[in-house]
Order: sequence, then C-alpha cells, then structure tokens
Amino acid sequence: MLRFALAQLNSHTANLDKNLNNAIHACIEAKNNHADIIIFPELFLCGYMPQDLLLEPNFIHSCQQQLEKFKQQTKHLDLHIIIGHISAKNNDIYNSAYVIYQGQELTIYHKIQLPNHGVFDEKRYFENGNLCQNSKFIDIKNIKIELAICEDIWHDKTYNQYGDILVSINASPFHLNKYAERIEKLSQYIDSKQSGIYLNMAGAQDEIVFDGSSFILDQNHQCITQLAKFKEQILYIDYDSEKKIWLNQAQKINQNFNNNNEFEDIYHALILAVKDYFIKTNFTKAVIGLSGGVDSAVTACIAVDALGKENVHTIMMPSDYTSQISLDDAQELSHNLGISHEIISISNILNMFNSSLAPSFAKLPKLPKSSRNDVTEENLQARIRGNLLMAYSNRSNALVLTTGNKSELAVGYCTLYGDMCGAFNPIKDLLKTQVYKLCDYYNKTNPARTIPARILTRAPSAELRPNQTDQDSLPPYEILDQILVSYIEHYQSAEEIIKQGIDEQIVNKILKLIKISEYKRQQGAVGPKISTRAFGKDWRYNIAYFL
Amino acid sequence: MLRFALAQLNSHTANLDKNLNNAIHACIEAKNNHADIIIFPELFLCGYMPQDLLLEPNFIHSCQQQLEKFKQQTKHLDLHIIIGHISAKNNDIYNSAYVIYQGQELTIYHKIQLPNHGVFDEKRYFENGNLCQNSKFIDIKNIKIELAICEDIWHDKTYNQYGDILVSINASPFHLNKYAERIEKLSQYIDSKQSGIYLNMAGAQDEIVFDGSSFILDQNHQCITQLAKFKEQILYIDYDSEKKIWLNQAQKINQNFNNNNEFEDIYHALILAVKDYFIKTNFTKAVIGLSGGVDSAVTACIAVDALGKENVHTIMMPSDYTSQISLDDAQELSHNLGISHEIISISNILNMFNSSLAPSFAKLPKLPKSSRNDVTEENLQARIRGNLLMAYSNRSNALVLTTGNKSELAVGYCTLYGDMCGAFNPIKDLLKTQVYKLCDYYNKTNPARTIPARILTRAPSAELRPNQTDQDSLPPYEILDQILVSYIEHYQSAEEIIKQGIDEQIVNKILKLIKISEYKRQQGAVGPKISTRAFGKDWRYNIAYFL
Repeated sequence: MLRFALAQLNSHTANLDKNLNNAIHACIEAKNNHADIIIFPELFLCGYMPQDLLLEPNFIHSCQQQLEKFKQQTKHLDLHIIIGHISAKNNDIYNSAYVIYQGQELTIYHKIQLPNHGVFDEKRYFENGNLCQNSKFIDIKNIKIELAICEDIWHDKTYNQYGDILVSINASPFHLNKYAERIEKLSQYIDSKQSGIYLNMAGAQDEIVFDGSSFILDQNHQCITQLAKFKEQILYIDYDSEKKIWLNQAQKINQNFNNNNEFEDIYHALILAVKDYFIKTNFTKAVIGLSGGVDSAVTACIAVDALGKENVHTIMMPSDYTSQISLDDAQELSHNLGISHEIISISNILNMFNSSLAPSFAKLPKLPKSSRNDVTEENLQARIRGNLLMAYSNRSNALVLTTGNKSELAVGYCTLYGDMCGAFNPIKDLLKTQVYKLCDYYNKTNPARTIPARILTRAPSAELRPNQTDQDSLPPYEILDQILVSYIEHYQSAEEIIKQGIDEQIVNKILKLIKISEYKRQQGAVGPKISTRAFGKDWRYNIAYFL
Repeated sequence: MLRFALAQLNSHTANLDKNLNNAIHACIEAKNNHADIIIFPELFLCGYMPQDLLLEPNFIHSCQQQLEKFKQQTKHLDLHIIIGHISAKNNDIYNSAYVIYQGQELTIYHKIQLPNHGVFDEKRYFENGNLCQNSKFIDIKNIKIELAICEDIWHDKTYNQYGDILVSINASPFHLNKYAERIEKLSQYIDSKQSGIYLNMAGAQDEIVFDGSSFILDQNHQCITQLAKFKEQILYIDYDSEKKIWLNQAQKINQNFNNNNEFEDIYHALILAVKDYFIKTNFTKAVIGLSGGVDSAVTACIAVDALGKENVHTIMMPSDYTSQISLDDAQELSHNLGISHEIISISNILNMFNSSLAPSFAKLPKLPKSSRNDVTEENLQARIRGNLLMAYSNRSNALVLTTGNKSELAVGYCTLYGDMCGAFNPIKDLLKTQVYKLCDYYNKTNPARTIPARILTRAPSAELRPNQTDQDSLPPYEILDQILVSYIEHYQSAEEIIKQGIDEQIVNKILKLIKISEYKRQQGAVGPKISTRAFGKDWRYNIAYFL
C-alpha cells in the first residue's frame, strides 16, 4: 500500500524562503502522517508565475540554491517528493517537475506544452520539453508514475506508453465552471485502466485565482476524491499497489464540489483574491467609498469576509445630487456589516474647484447646452471622491478597494482617477447583472448581515447630476451584458450579435465604446479574473485606434 | 534595369480602409515613377500590431476581404508588389509577405521566426512558417528575390540557397542605437555577393516607435542607401539585373543617418510618438501642467514640435510651497515657446480638502512627527493638480500629457492619480539624466525658443513641502540612473551593481523601491519606448510580491 499526500498549497511568487519553508513543513507533516509520496503544485518552489524575474540570472541562481536547500533539508525523510520548480540548463529555462527522494533527484520532467494564450506567456520564458529528453515515467515502489504539467493534458497525447497513475501538477487559473472541463480533459488524456491525480495550487496572485479543487480519477475514470475549493489542504489517500485501486476514498468526497452554484464559487474566488492580494502586499486594512449603490455594497461584503470587519472602513462622500435614500442605505449597510462608516461631503470642495477653474473656462469657447460641460463636472465629483479616499489611504495605511464592474469598464462608464481609484478591484470581472445575482447569493447565505433590499431594487445611478440613471446613457444591463459576453468571451462580430435580436445601433455603439475606452482600462486597477476572458492579461488591445 | 520603390510608410492598426487606400496610392505613385517593384512593411495592410483583434474571426475575415480589394484595385498596374499582411489557413494565422502582380498572388511567404520576447507576443497569434511550406524565393524579371520578415534575419540562416536580393520587410521597434545592430544582422544573414533590402515601417503605435531608417546593403555588404529616420518616405532606386549592381545610389545617402547624436534620435522618436498617438486617437490639442521643472519643460517642447504651438496649452498650479523662481521660469518657457499659459492656484482647494478631512483624520491614531502625514498632504497637492488638468481636458477636449521620467517611475517618486494623470507620457522611458541631456540638445538646436537656463541648473524638487529637493529621498540621479540601467536593461543583481562601487544600502533600497512601486506603474500612462527595456510590454512583473 502506498499513501499519497496531495499538497494543495499556496505559493508566493518570488518569496523563495517562504515557499521553501512551506514545502519542508508539508513534507515533514506528510511523513508524520505516514505518507510515501507527496505531490506539490506546478512551480511551487519559485511561485507561479514569476514573470520577468525569470529573465534575471540572479533569480535563476537563487532558485537553484533554494532547490539544493530543499533537497538537503528533506534528505532524512523516507518520502518521495514530486514538486514543481524551474530548471535551468545552459541558457534555457524549463517549467519542470522534480521527483526527489532522500535528497536525490530521481528524475526531472520538463513541461512540453507551454501555454501562450489567455493570461499565459510561458513561451516568453521557457523552452518546451520533448519526449526524447523527458523522463516522463518513474517507478516508485512498484507503481509506474507518469508525469504531466498543467497544459500538457489539454493537448492530445503523442506517445503510446502509460503509467499506472498519471500525476498532473498544476497552477490552473479559475474561471467559472472550469471543474468539469478539467475532469473531462484528464479523463481524455489518461488511458483506460490508468488513474489520474490532478493537483492544483490554492491561492491568488494579482488577477489570477488558483482555486485548488484538485481531484483524483480512478482506473474507471470516476472522480473519487475532491479537495477543497479556494482553500489550502493536504489530503492523504491510500493506493493498493498490488490491486492498483484507491482505498479509503468514500470519506474524501467534498460535498460542495459539484453544487453548481456559480455565485458561491464567484464569491469565494473574490474573497481569496482580496485576501491574498493583501497578504502578498503586506497590508491589512481596506477603505471603500460607499455610494449607496450595489457595486460598493457587495465590495464591502467581500472585504469583510476577506479581511475581517475590524479591517474595513467605509466613507460616503455625498454631493448635492446624492439622495437621502443613498445616504440611508449606505449607513444601513455598514451597520449590518458592523464596519466603521463616516460621511465627508464633497460640496465645498467641488465649489472651490469650480470657482478656481471658472476664469480658465471663461476663456474657452462656449459649449452647446447639455454637452460635455456636464462630463467635466461629473468627473470632478468622482475625482474629488477618489482624492479623499486616497488621502484617507495615505493617512491610515488602508488600501483603497475600487468598485467598478466589468460592464462599466467595458464601455467606459466610469471616471479615470475618480471612481477608478484604488489598489484592487474585487468585482472587476463581474458584469452588472452578475453583481446583482452575487448580492442575492450573499443575502441568502448571510441573513444576519444583509445588503439592504432597496440597494438591489433601485434603478442604478451614478448620482452625478439630478435624476440621473445609468439607463440614460446605456441600454438596459441585460442587453448590455449580452452584447459584452458575445463580443468579449465569444469573439462575435456586430453582425452575429445583431442576429441575436439586438438593435443594430445599440450594438455598434457599444462595440465602439469598448474600443475607445481602452485608455481607461489600461490605467485601471487589477482585479480577479472569474470569466473566460477578463480585462487584464487576457485582453490585449492597442489604445490608439483610428476609428 | 529594375526600379524598386521602397515604401517606408506608416500603417494604422485595424484601420483597414486607411491602410488599403494608402497602399493603393503608393502603388499608383510608384507606377507613375516607373517602378517595377514596390515593397511595403510587415503587416502593412492590417497594421502592426493588431494584438487581440487577431483572435476575432470577424477581423480575420475583414482582412481577407481587404486583401481581395487590394488585388482588385491594383490589377491594372504592371507592378510587382511585396506587402506584409496576415494570412489565414483553416484556424491558423500567419504573419506573411505576399507577392502580388496584376491581381494575382505569385507567392506567400510565412514568417518563420516569431518573436515572443521584449514587447512582442507573436506566438500568441501566429503559427510559424517553415521552409517546406514557404515560398521563400520568387523570380521577378530575371532576378531572384529571397523573402524574409523582421525577426527571421535575427536568427541563423538554416538553408543553403540564396537569391540575388534578400528583401526583409519589418515593423521593427526603435531603441537607441539600433541601426548598427540591424545593419550587422542583415549583413550576417545575407550571403556574399547577395544584396539586401531592409524595409521598415515609419510611425508609432501606443508605446512603440517604428523609426523607418530602412536601408540597402549592396553585393559587397556596403550600406549604399538609407531612408529617412522617423518619417514616411518612398524611395526609388534602380538595379541593373544583368550586372547585379545597384545604380543611382550616391544621392540617396541620408547625411543624418550616422550622425550618432543619440538625443537627436530620441527627440525625433518622441515627437513621432506624440504625433501618431494624437492622430490615431483623433485628438489635436494637448494640455500640460508646468511646474517650473525640467520634465514638464521638455514635454512642452516635444508637444510643440509634435502638435504645433497653437495646440499646446500649459497650466501652472502653484501651492504655498511653489517658489517665485518656478512661476517665473514656467512663464518664460511658455513665452519662449509661444504657447498659451495660465496660473490656477491650488491653495484654496488644498485648504478645503484639509478641513474636509480633518474630522476623519482626528479619529485616527496620531502619527509620529515627520512621518507619512507629510505624504498625505504631498499627494493631495499632486492629485488636486491632476484633477484640475483633467477638468481642463474634459472641458477643452485637449489630452493631458503627463511628465514622469523613467527614474521617478522606477522608484515610485511620483503620485498615482496626481502628477501621473494623463493620456500619454512622452518622457516615460527617459532617465532623469537623459532628460537633462535632451534639454541640452533641444536648446542647442532651438536657440530662438530655449528652455530657460535656470530650469536646467536648479536642484530638482517636487516643491511639495518647504525646501524640498529630490535628493532628500533619492541618491544623486547619476547614481540612481546607473543602478536602474544595470538592473532594468542589463538584468544585473544587487551584488553585481554593488561591485560597480555603489553603496550596498543604496542599491538594496532602490531595488526594493522598484519592486514595491509596480502598482503605480501598472496604472500609469503609456509612453514611447526608447531604451532596450521600457516600462510597458517589455516589463512584466507581479504587483503582489511578499517582500
């Protein structure tokens, strides 16, 4: 019998000491739990993804030293270790899986398929391995382990051998409903009679959430074991190497794994993203500008669950256009969440800006009525709020969380240096319609600290002029979001979207707004990817199109 | 005798109609000038680089239609056309060179070496060609043309054939002193007795400047013809296809090509970058916040030369810490340049911010003396200025040019949403020491409209508190810039930089500042790359390091 330890852990980009210590502790714990083999995620020792650190010779050198320390400090353990790390040979760098036993490298496997699409740039850094140089197989106590790294199993298998167990180590970014895809891919990749271990990292790095959700497929390709979603976990499971079957599996099934509640997944993804952003930047406190609207409300909920209510401060910054309803709702929300809240009016500051600018504007040509002059004053309000939040941030050492949803960012319905101010944007990749559904999910699961109902039922408004609603400038959010998903995630053309039954003028207007808003997005805060295509590394467009 | 037309032109990303028309007009002009062959740059018809538009099936389809129109509309011309464009086959996209004659494709060559380093992501989009499928050679009127695209010639030649003339079409980004590299690479790539045409695009797209500077190497590998730097040009040159020599070459030598004045090149690169950013975003006017310092001064000069003095407005926004010298120098600069200038004080607005924030700050724990409280007020001043500029921009339809140099951006000596506000940053990739040298160059070549001497001789200061100078927080710029070049461009470690004789504490402090300032840079404006490694597509780091 062989006992496997599946170490679904977080890694910390470029914090080599921390990753080393975490790995050693996990090995010791595994050995204490009588494990024979421990498996770590892809690039665990250097952290996924070090990006351009991989171009620095000194970083490569430090990684090699770190590996030697790891071997040295696990030398005394009767434990086989499969761990992801870079390897270097001459001037070539590989994304590798090391198999280490008592300080000796038994084999190194180099990732063959290097993803260079979506959020990935692996061909920027790595040479790909090939089957000739690769040691894809390793016998451990009479079972034949076959190695793969992440993207490898998303391509057709190009060779005819197989091991008893395929071990795929991963740093696989979350997007909605990806579990089923992963299970299908692994199932297609392994041979009949072969079982497979899919081990993923659990943690977040900037915009990427690694959701854990590791699993094992048995020799019948049934998913028999599932690890936690969005959480670190070390799972132990036994394998009968004579009968080639997995033992003690029943109790390992994670009841929540297949619950198919998208918004539960999203909510936990966002919490993990915020939590790790703060940990990995060494901050503890957040400040959020509440508007009385739905975006800032749900952002406050996420912040509370990620950082603790004692670490979240909210500021309401009313102007003359802010309704009493908004003030009341923001107040009630902060009361419900148990977080500190204060009010700073922007009216006096706005007046001072207007009077300071008046002599300058008087020299400019007059604008036609109801033209861009409105935009100037609307943006000023948003930017004064941004300044106040940033001043509070500077003075209190709290990071500003910004609250722009994907629908707004897509069409530029947001103010650069205004409501876009902030270090991190938890709902950056959520469409407005998803924000509402996330609130519904949140209120159902948190009846003791809800988002006030009126926030969810009022017509959304930026409250930057009298009686304004978002729908003055934009189509209804259901229509807008349908256009956005079709274009952004499904790469559809205007013609194809119009064929869905949406008005041609609206479609053309929205697609044009997406293009001309690129300058805002490129100066926007980072935020977690939860869709198949987020504004971030996933989305690479020029700013200067001649339209 | 064969007459070549070298069409060193600008392309406009995704503006397919404009590129099509420009190409057709160039062909007609070439034919009127009795050319036999016209050569266009890499990806000329779709523009370099369309980025993720290449993932949209509709864009690919539009490109194919555009190509058909191009063939149709050049059908009547007795002219061989070599032009860069994408090609699509099944689901694969190639970066290709088409050879077209009278509406017929004589051959298509697919780029073999796809750059995926530096600013490039070509493996994200393209399949690479290979020698089997490639039609690398084409006979045109008894001369054998050999085709290559950009990166191809930067790698060793892997085949033994050669043509009479190698034609390499390029969209090659500028960086300092790249001409010599290109000549060397082409010279190494071509065979003895073979001559080579290096044709580059002239124009800018976002952060990338394509500097033109095309050239011809004759059969002795002598550079006999050089096209304009940083300017569009169609050059005609004759080739004796019997004797295999170039004719009428003497008059083609561009006197300025090898002048080795780095700052002349930089200045023209920046002008082109600004000019094309405005053209390609459809703006004409710029507004700049003048401080009385060197960065905003040289930015104003660049803007005047790129956009015309009638299109540049400057605003000085003094606080109580602003010296009379700064006010006078800014005034004198705008007078010298002949641009409009006005003064808007920030003192009243700052006071209003301070009094609005006072109740909130009073509730926070007291800070130790001379601590981050200063930073709060310093940042507020910068952010008020940012807001004023953006308000002016909204009201006047002028784009804000921001003025942060590379040294500041590297170490975070700048205020996010404050002095970092702006659409485009002309001096983003210039070290502070380079900014001074660029001013010297400018003053020497523009004696009638100089930057006032005192701006160049005063100790640099942000003037955000009394008697502040940059050197209160930073090492002397000569030292800082030496560290930055060593780390950013030469990938050196702290140890290696210390070995140059720089104090260990300073080196470690600066390298740490670079890492923890990444969040600012990722929200900063785009600006032209002039070094071998700029903050932009060239520089990919995570924000959240656990340091």
